[in-house]
Amino acid sequence: MSTDDEKPTTFHMTPDDFRSQGREVIEWIARYMETVDEYPVLSRVAPGDIRSRLPDHAPEHGEEFSAMLRDVDDILMPGITHWQSPGFFAYFPSNNSGPSILGELLSAGLGVQGMLWSTSPACTELETHVLDWLVEMLGLPERFRSQGDGGGVLQDTASNSTLCALLAARERAMDFSSGRTGVAGDLTVYASDQAHSSIDKAVRIAGLGSDRLRKIAVDATYALRPDALAEALKRDREAGYRPCLVMATVGTTSSNAIDPIAPIAEICRREGVWLHVDAAMSGTAALCPEFRWIQRGVEGADSYTFNPHKWMFTNFDCNAFWVADRSVLIRTLSVLPEYLRNAASESGAVLDYRDWHVQLGRRFRALKLWFVIRHYGVEGLRHHVREHIRLAQEFAQWVQASDGFELAAPAPLNLVCLRHVDGDSRTQTILDQINAEGESYLTHTRLDGRLTLRVSIGQRATQRIHVERLWQRLSALGGIDPNSSHPVPGGDGERG
Amino acid sequence: MSTDDEKPTTFHMTPDDFRSQGREVIEWIARYMETVDEYPVLSRVAPGDIRSRLPDHAPEHGEEFSAMLRDVDDILMPGITHWQSPGFFAYFPSNNSGPSILGELLSAGLGVQGMLWSTSPACTELETHVLDWLVEMLGLPERFRSQGDGGGVLQDTASNSTLCALLAARERAMDFSSGRTGVAGDLTVYASDQAHSSIDKAVRIAGLGSDRLRKIAVDATYALRPDALAEALKRDREAGYRPCLVMATVGTTSSNAIDPIAPIAEICRREGVWLHVDAAMSGTAALCPEFRWIQRGVEGADSYTFNPHKWMFTNFDCNAFWVADRSVLIRTLSVLPEYLRNAASESGAVLDYRDWHVQLGRRFRALKLWFVIRHYGVEGLRHHVREHIRLAQEFAQWVQASDGFELAAPAPLNLVCLRHVDGDSRTQTILDQINAEGESYLTHTRLDGRLTLRVSIGQRATQRIHVERLWQRLSALGGIDPNSSHPVPGGDGERG
Repeated sequence: MSTDDEKPTTFHMTPDDFRSQGREVIEWIARYMETVDEYPVLSRVAPGDIRSRLPDHAPEHGEEFSAMLRDVDDILMPGITHWQSPGFFAYFPSNNSGPSILGELLSAGLGVQGMLWSTSPACTELETHVLDWLVEMLGLPERFRSQGDGGGVLQDTASNSTLCALLAARERAMDFSSGRTGVAGDLTVYASDQAHSSIDKAVRIAGLGSDRLRKIAVDATYALRPDALAEALKRDREAGYRPCLVMATVGTTSSNAIDPIAPIAEICRREGVWLHVDAAMSGTAALCPEFRWIQRGVEGADSYTFNPHKWMFTNFDCNAFWVADRSVLIRTLSVLPEYLRNAASESGAVLDYRDWHVQLGRRFRALKLWFVIRHYGVEGLRHHVREHIRLAQEFAQWVQASDGFELAAPAPLNLVCLRHVDGDSRTQTILDQINAEGESYLTHTRLDGRLTLRVSIGQRATQRIHVERLWQRLSALGGIDPNSSHPVPGGDGERG
Repeated sequence: MSTDDEKPTTFHMTPDDFRSQGREVIEWIARYMETVDEYPVLSRVAPGDIRSRLPDHAPEHGEEFSAMLRDVDDILMPGITHWQSPGFFAYFPSNNSGPSILGELLSAGLGVQGMLWSTSPACTELETHVLDWLVEMLGLPERFRSQGDGGGVLQDTASNSTLCALLAARERAMDFSSGRTGVAGDLTVYASDQAHSSIDKAVRIAGLGSDRLRKIAVDATYALRPDALAEALKRDREAGYRPCLVMATVGTTSSNAIDPIAPIAEICRREGVWLHVDAAMSGTAALCPEFRWIQRGVEGADSYTFNPHKWMFTNFDCNAFWVADRSVLIRTLSVLPEYLRNAASESGAVLDYRDWHVQLGRRFRALKLWFVIRHYGVEGLRHHVREHIRLAQEFAQWVQASDGFELAAPAPLNLVCLRHVDGDSRTQTILDQINAEGESYLTHTRLDGRLTLRVSIGQRATQRIHVERLWQRLSALGGIDPNSSHPVPGGDGERG
């Protein structure tokens, strides 16, 4: 009955246009995967360069999709720092992978909300299920599984997981019987002076006051000293404070130091303090039984977090967070307005993840994680973790055997911290030069007050040849012969 | 020099496999767009149904991608509640669209981090730029633009934006000179008793204590009463509290009530209290000049938030948040460890968005928003907003003219609240029946203590015919003649 001119106007992209333009974007990404190593890793634009090429006003009329993709190439790409480059050794990796990208795509296409079980049961149940899988895959304690009192949830970042751990610990430490919740009392928090800045941020967000974070001294390996922790707790108890949370780090950002969880857990148990374990980067190593020593004692943790979006080939954001007693977390974060009430929630038979984090809305993040685990299999994930660690260990040997560089810290896994023996100024020059050349990208830290280069080996595409090239450039800039004191890296070109 | 058997083992998906499997996923989504209206909107599975079909353990060996897509169809789809269905009238919409899905895909493929300007300058600069565009597109005050002291940032959800507004307000209200930051003192917070539950959550997270949120009485339209606000502030001042934040809502979740910003802003100005405006749902309406009355007085706001991921065809998550004085926000959330220091940040010439929210890591969210704005143009976005509002207004007239249903609240934009004149039990039966039938999905609230159906008209694909069908079913279940008292909806079938 309709005629053409009665058809409603629409500006939506038709499914057929989505098909053709979607194929273009897929092709764009495939080509990017093939050519990412040709870009300078660190963007070379100056502040304002990108904005100066964008129009001042939003377009009044819609534009062709091809024009947007062209602008991605022409305007945006010079302003991209290539986290997916095999020469990316900076910070920690933030990997993507084929199955993960496609999982994210499917999640965007489904466009469901998982705030309540009822708003898409598959979103909640797949998430709970995959997080139970991961407990087994990583050799984490059974108490984190959802079948008992615990359970896991996907968050965006370890910053938010750590905040949630602190909030739950805060509530557990305060007196619920007062009827007031969400109160920041005379609480104190403990982490090593090498712990991630997100704990500083969480302590402030939670209203405890920045001075309530006790930064505990570390040993020669930059790991938290349990004796110093015990002493700090004792001092605070005597001064009338209420210690509420200790955070142990498995793999610090500066140097990959591994706090000794077992003795820390014993102290927390004795003191009745919540133990949160931040394994954001290094947790992935526990896929391999031979690296599970990093989490020895984790049975005593109240909560644990690691980032599949760093080293487990799952694109950002995807943080995994477990608690041993989910009831405390839920009690801390649950607010139930009428418009969210539903029969399934009231039955008590389901989990509603909105009560497990700050946000209400949540997307179907488990899909990409499920795709990654199924694509690689446990075997495939282990293979690449082992390979990265093997490359880092080899690199550390080159550093150690050289006469120009020295290790600035132990390299237990896949991060190597080094500096030039001539001191900070020489180290800085080398860093600046490497990053200016564009083949590799490194960032720095300070250890023991001295400037330190961090070589983080965990990017999906990084192979031996990329690590060799970095070492050759470091050697040249450091005024040493790369082949003087160790097996020739890449000298025969065969193992690249 | 390499031979085949020297090639390193890899479990990564090759670019060519990504090409072919990517095309499959694009095709899957295109077909989903074409057929989404054939699924029951609300999933019919029972708790545990999905999990019971998933294997107990993660696979040891990698699987074919086609097996995963098959499991999406066979196992997951029955557990999906179809937020992208044109029959989705529940909660508020959480729209996706072709250009937005492709922007999300490209962001996943690029896999960059935007925590610092230097970690991908294009990610930061496009975001700042598009948020400046939006200030103009929405008729928001100039002071929110980045050229002056203000600026916008993309967050995940309005829950987090509201939390950040509260944290900044908390810091501004406390005494910085003490040297302590992140302290929850004797602060109080104000919002209407219809405000979103995220303000309750934020007050608890920030450590103020749940009892420090003053829920201000509303008028007959469910909008905050400025006189009641003024009185509450006065009372708290007298009792020694320090009021720190007032939140005004533009479009409450229950009934789309519009708090009168102008008089609220005047009170906040007088009292020196931070005014945060939560326009999460209804902010999109301000794209159209004729609906900008909803934000009259917003010039007096210290911060403002709305969700492109609700009604502006940008898939979740994508929340826009502006502040008039970014220095307070940055001072509140900035923690600078050595490993994040860099020359660009220290030059002061760039924005580092890690200091604008809880998270450190952040993905390239601006890409999808940029694609959406460019695909639709301002004209296209306005068209669809007007169309949804027109449909809702027409629906509201049908309700008003009927002898079985009545409006439960004014319907200023695209949400219609109604109930059956026979009372809650009849209304509940109708709600349950509609949702069981599967063609439409509605959720409820309580207004004035009475059960109320919410008909939220804002899903991308919703057209007149879907609204007509809903009204026909409501009429049949409500025992009324859909055509008795108003122009026949869809009677001639021509306007569907």
